[in-house]
Amino acid sequence: MTGAPTHTSASTADGPSERPLRAAVLGAGSWGTTFAAVLADAGCAVTVWGRDEEVCRQIADEHRNERYLPGITLPDAVGATTDARAALAGADVVAVAVPSQSARATLAPLADALAPHAVVVSLMKGVELSTDRRMSEVVAESFGIDLARVAVVSGPNLAKEIAQRQPTATVVASTSEDTARIVARACASSYFRPYTNRDVVGVELCGAVKNVIALAVGISQGRGLGYNTMATVITRGLVEISRLGLALGADAETFPGLAGMGDLMATCASPDSRNHTLGCHIGRGMSLEEAVAATGGTAEGVKSSRSVLELAGSLGVDMPITAAVVRVLYEGLPVGELAALLLARPRKAEGV
Amino acid sequence: MTGAPTHTSASTADGPSERPLRAAVLGAGSWGTTFAAVLADAGCAVTVWGRDEEVCRQIADEHRNERYLPGITLPDAVGATTDARAALAGADVVAVAVPSQSARATLAPLADALAPHAVVVSLMKGVELSTDRRMSEVVAESFGIDLARVAVVSGPNLAKEIAQRQPTATVVASTSEDTARIVARACASSYFRPYTNRDVVGVELCGAVKNVIALAVGISQGRGLGYNTMATVITRGLVEISRLGLALGADAETFPGLAGMGDLMATCASPDSRNHTLGCHIGRGMSLEEAVAATGGTAEGVKSSRSVLELAGSLGVDMPITAAVVRVLYEGLPVGELAALLLARPRKAEGV
Repeated sequence: MTGAPTHTSASTADGPSERPLRAAVLGAGSWGTTFAAVLADAGCAVTVWGRDEEVCRQIADEHRNERYLPGITLPDAVGATTDARAALAGADVVAVAVPSQSARATLAPLADALAPHAVVVSLMKGVELSTDRRMSEVVAESFGIDLARVAVVSGPNLAKEIAQRQPTATVVASTSEDTARIVARACASSYFRPYTNRDVVGVELCGAVKNVIALAVGISQGRGLGYNTMATVITRGLVEISRLGLALGADAETFPGLAGMGDLMATCASPDSRNHTLGCHIGRGMSLEEAVAATGGTAEGVKSSRSVLELAGSLGVDMPITAAVVRVLYEGLPVGELAALLLARPRKAEGV
Repeated sequence: MTGAPTHTSASTADGPSERPLRAAVLGAGSWGTTFAAVLADAGCAVTVWGRDEEVCRQIADEHRNERYLPGITLPDAVGATTDARAALAGADVVAVAVPSQSARATLAPLADALAPHAVVVSLMKGVELSTDRRMSEVVAESFGIDLARVAVVSGPNLAKEIAQRQPTATVVASTSEDTARIVARACASSYFRPYTNRDVVGVELCGAVKNVIALAVGISQGRGLGYNTMATVITRGLVEISRLGLALGADAETFPGLAGMGDLMATCASPDSRNHTLGCHIGRGMSLEEAVAATGGTAEGVKSSRSVLELAGSLGVDMPITAAVVRVLYEGLPVGELAALLLARPRKAEGV
């Protein structure tokens, strides 16, 4: 059962007058599978595409994905296939949740299979390292479509909790209000509340830089510091993300919102976050190499901290927390000096 | 040793050219005693005033306050007295940390003991119920001084962690920049970083309303919901606090700052917060009466939720989370319907 997509039922979110949307999700990992369940619960008929035959068979036939979402039962309206073109055929909404650095290579060969009216949702965080492009730009370029047909979904969205249908909210950002509204309609349900936003730059920047701040919070918690320090690092971290964002033309209101503060808070509070865990190991005194080994792999913030700092430097933007994290990770700054470094700066007025 | 103030040593924070400031702290509870230690570590000579002879004797003679800060050793430069006039004599900075509702009765008889040049810091949260005055207004009226001589200190400032000298930041707000700067200088140290702000209304509003949002977070956690829900309630909670603040003339930048988001986050994350604990009990199914009993007393948010909602209503401001908390606490809304109530509203654009 990995060929044609299978669906059992689908109803509309907004009543019988609207045709049920057809959706495809490219990527059968934890977030891709979870978002497929969100779309199905909102009334879409969904097909997940994945490379792994067994994962797709399990999703389609048994409504579960034990490898990436153990213990979760998926809605009947989620089907799956290993044939990406079959998944894309006739899909009104296409969500992409493949690894960021291979997105271009995955999507470009499928450009002609995309329905001419389809809108595309990027669920990916980070920046394409070889080009410095944001993921919405990578999606638009790979599919050969206008940016106005692309939306980004980001917020306090830990996949495991959403898969358990715990209530949360999210931001659907697109340069086109119509695109944002179509995607918001496609994913809104009793436990998942989308808010639309026009500021794609700000939303994607928050998603990329939050991991650096999560590292700093992890480091301070690894040193045994409590909630005041956590809240201070997150709050001042958001100020420096905002400063960089404003220099890049983002909207100031995005940063205290769900994709900024909301995502940052969920990421920093969750013990499951890889950036947080790796930071804790560093805070307890491990070297970067030891911490990566103990975490079972590197974390996004480790990779992006230096490029974020370089970008900030090129724009003349001050990012003291990011700079301190880079000094601890790469320049041998003793981790005990991190807090002092953050607090020893001259007294000044609050604000960006 | 509860008569004249005692000090052992004091040095300046900004070098030998500045005269060490003399400070008084009115109130020997947990936050008052902690702030006295902060002032002493920043170089002030500090006298704490308290009503209890034994508490004052222990602070002055043994440098500890076992009743309110068990296990903490206070700096040598913290003295104590039960004579409020002796504490105030010659004090450049006077911090007030007495119970909000009795502040006026405590301060008014001491007005003539205040040095003519002294600045006064309110460490109190909430609103005087009989007059609806903010605490900075109560302080100014009681002492018969101009509001420009009053500052407010608020931020992610859980007393216990600060007393352990864990690093944090705070906001010093005053309508007078000079007053804010004097207070910031008086309390800045290697672990306590003040930022100045002119928006007293916004800072005090955040301190009062955060407890209602902490109740909502506690309720959701009591129901077993995780970090996404917590981050969503805090983020959208801050949006509704901002909406009320803007209607009252506050500065939009205060809300994502340390006194808004920072304090809210620390309060909601800490298991020690009374509002959070009481909310958890309600979330687990207790009635308000049962929850108050289990918490060992009521919580600030329970008292203020209805008056905040009334204020919002009179200004035409929508506060759905506050309204939902009031419905659960006072109108018998089943707690299981709280989340649905928050998320079932029409899809819309993000923002205030």
